Amino acid sequence: MVKAAVLGYGTVGSGVVQVIEENSDVIAAHGVDMHVKYILDLRDFPGDKYESLVTHDFEDIIKDDEVKVVCEAMGGVEPAFTFSKRALEAGKSVCTSNKELVAAKGAELMRIAKENNANYLFEASVGGGIPILRTINDALTAERIECVKGILNGTTNYILTKMEREGADFDVVLKEAQDKGYAERNPEADVEGHDACRKMAILVSLISHRRADWEQIRTEGITKVTPVDFKYAHKLGRTIKLIAMCQKTDKGFYAIVSPRMIDKDDPINCAQDVFNAVLVRSDMLDDSLYYGRGAGKLPTASAVVGDAVELAKHVGEHFSAGWSEEAENLVDIDSVEFSYFVRLGGSFADRRDELTASFGEVSEVNAGVEGEFGVITKPVSEGSFRTAYEKLTDTKGYIRIG
Amino acid sequence: MVKAAVLGYGTVGSGVVQVIEENSDVIAAHGVDMHVKYILDLRDFPGDKYESLVTHDFEDIIKDDEVKVVCEAMGGVEPAFTFSKRALEAGKSVCTSNKELVAAKGAELMRIAKENNANYLFEASVGGGIPILRTINDALTAERIECVKGILNGTTNYILTKMEREGADFDVVLKEAQDKGYAERNPEADVEGHDACRKMAILVSLISHRRADWEQIRTEGITKVTPVDFKYAHKLGRTIKLIAMCQKTDKGFYAIVSPRMIDKDDPINCAQDVFNAVLVRSDMLDDSLYYGRGAGKLPTASAVVGDAVELAKHVGEHFSAGWSEEAENLVDIDSVEFSYFVRLGGSFADRRDELTASFGEVSEVNAGVEGEFGVITKPVSEGSFRTAYEKLTDTKGYIRIG
Repeated sequence: MVKAAVLGYGTVGSGVVQVIEENSDVIAAHGVDMHVKYILDLRDFPGDKYESLVTHDFEDIIKDDEVKVVCEAMGGVEPAFTFSKRALEAGKSVCTSNKELVAAKGAELMRIAKENNANYLFEASVGGGIPILRTINDALTAERIECVKGILNGTTNYILTKMEREGADFDVVLKEAQDKGYAERNPEADVEGHDACRKMAILVSLISHRRADWEQIRTEGITKVTPVDFKYAHKLGRTIKLIAMCQKTDKGFYAIVSPRMIDKDDPINCAQDVFNAVLVRSDMLDDSLYYGRGAGKLPTASAVVGDAVELAKHVGEHFSAGWSEEAENLVDIDSVEFSYFVRLGGSFADRRDELTASFGEVSEVNAGVEGEFGVITKPVSEGSFRTAYEKLTDTKGYIRIG
Repeated sequence: MVKAAVLGYGTVGSGVVQVIEENSDVIAAHGVDMHVKYILDLRDFPGDKYESLVTHDFEDIIKDDEVKVVCEAMGGVEPAFTFSKRALEAGKSVCTSNKELVAAKGAELMRIAKENNANYLFEASVGGGIPILRTINDALTAERIECVKGILNGTTNYILTKMEREGADFDVVLKEAQDKGYAERNPEADVEGHDACRKMAILVSLISHRRADWEQIRTEGITKVTPVDFKYAHKLGRTIKLIAMCQKTDKGFYAIVSPRMIDKDDPINCAQDVFNAVLVRSDMLDDSLYYGRGAGKLPTASAVVGDAVELAKHVGEHFSAGWSEEAENLVDIDSVEFSYFVRLGGSFADRRDELTASFGEVSEVNAGVEGEFGVITKPVSEGSFRTAYEKLTDTKGYIRIG
């Protein structure tokens, strides 16, 4: 029997305990007999089914040689980093849902895991319950991955889905999402794209085998998206999603997180409401897509436990892939070309020459909105687009196409 | 270095050789140094890049202790079964894209693999390049899987997609698909649902851990679907797909392959043209979906090679999950309830009482088609529906809902 310890008894941590204990028969059918021996939390949980497992002292876990698997569900960099590091140094394998920690210190923890014949897994840190990291690591092993394009944040996808269906403003839908518990009281990490950005940094690192710095990824959130933007999108047979993507080029990977006008028939548009989806383009398989719940107690816990089962199968044996501490230098996003949808005041007839001078040939998008119009540019480099856009007067926003 | 043999140098087999050799650097990055030592085929391939690897004699492969991995891409039950069995008995692991063989003899080959510390993998037999079996086996290890619902046949999905978009008849689109090479000259296995049925039998076996007999799965193809059916579907905000599904009940699993009217917003509807998609519903994760190319030389070969890489990592060590030779008794489909869309001649007003007597309460679907109308039933058991349907006069077909 493998004994596990769960660090943190919040939403994800309590889900992890629930999944391990309630589905222990399912896990056993996969050849693993696993139970939780400790739950680390500062709090007590009187009356909780598992209250007898709670300890306040991490030393109980570290000193117990029976504990082979540690499920870290604390969130944040500290003390999660210190505890994960010490567990790995003690030869215990660690799995986590903690994207901040993986994005910040993942490479170091992977190295420590290797040095100690242990493993560090983090499936739940990207796409919640969707087995996307495992697919990239273990299934697409004969594939040269060229592009990953994901809806990686459930909160913003819920907001955009609602805005589209109800024609409501961002602020109104955000408040509703907060009331329902789909968005945090401080929603910045979600709505400004930081959460999706960290997840994309993890994906780029996994694919390139080198540490990608999330701070190098240009990140725009959804706070400027309006119902009027959706009118134009619909006119074009498109919708608007917060897309995190990376793409291989001759010079390496570029990565960007931003709202995009995607085709309504794009398979990634199957992700509505809080669902996530990740499309992977690779050289032999072409497009494949993975869809599911990107957050929530049990879906996230399920991914953590899936990792724990894998760790339990490989006690004392290092097997996990990952990336080195060497930096992956992302391609300067200003050199990458996109097509842009741009909204402007006035009329297309009056401003056509000005816009052609700024962006090259453009085509009009008329969604019947009073006092303004839209255009779509041909592919132009991000840097030259932004320089030209900033020089224009009476602009009303832009969104990248595709 | 691990040496592989490829049995059969047709479409898939030549793809397997291409993927292993052209992407050997990618595979090496996953820790596996693998090359093809033999290609078994009755034919010679003068001028082919790999002609020097071709042998006509299976004994060359069996006798060569250097060959640890055998990729079977022959198709059909014999001689693929005999060769696979002998390879496993010799302690060589085998991977395959051969769904007929896996559905017919999979359990026996898995047992022989286990007895010889070898493994038998068959990712490519279901969903082509989509890593669905690996996801079920290795990722959803903490999940109680309740339902699998898939678009598992690319040919029929291509035909239905075309019929929907162009309002064309089945026969016309089938001929076009044959001309393009998307459908076989003898299309029965695809259009009658037999191919999807075998794939569903493999999925049920994998989930239940016992051998499900494909002959027990009620299977209806798409030959009776017409452009008029799509008119009704659109009226209902739905489309028509060939769906293979299994569902857990108190009494075990039922399984069925048939055209279904699914909601246009159903995530599985992301699979257009030749693409496949599989939706898995499980107790902790809820819905997850896996999408990609379900056929084709390189996507299928990629899945075979993904298995080969896994086999190469575990030479001499049995690890693969599977199912026993004991039969899984599927629930009698006649006892399962569905809602049905039914087309009938005449008018709803005239026939309402007759239909209510047959099916219980029904609701009309008026798609403005001259001389006929449609109804939707409440959930009724398949057995009682079919008995009642056969007693009706002037019927024009039925399609299950959802």
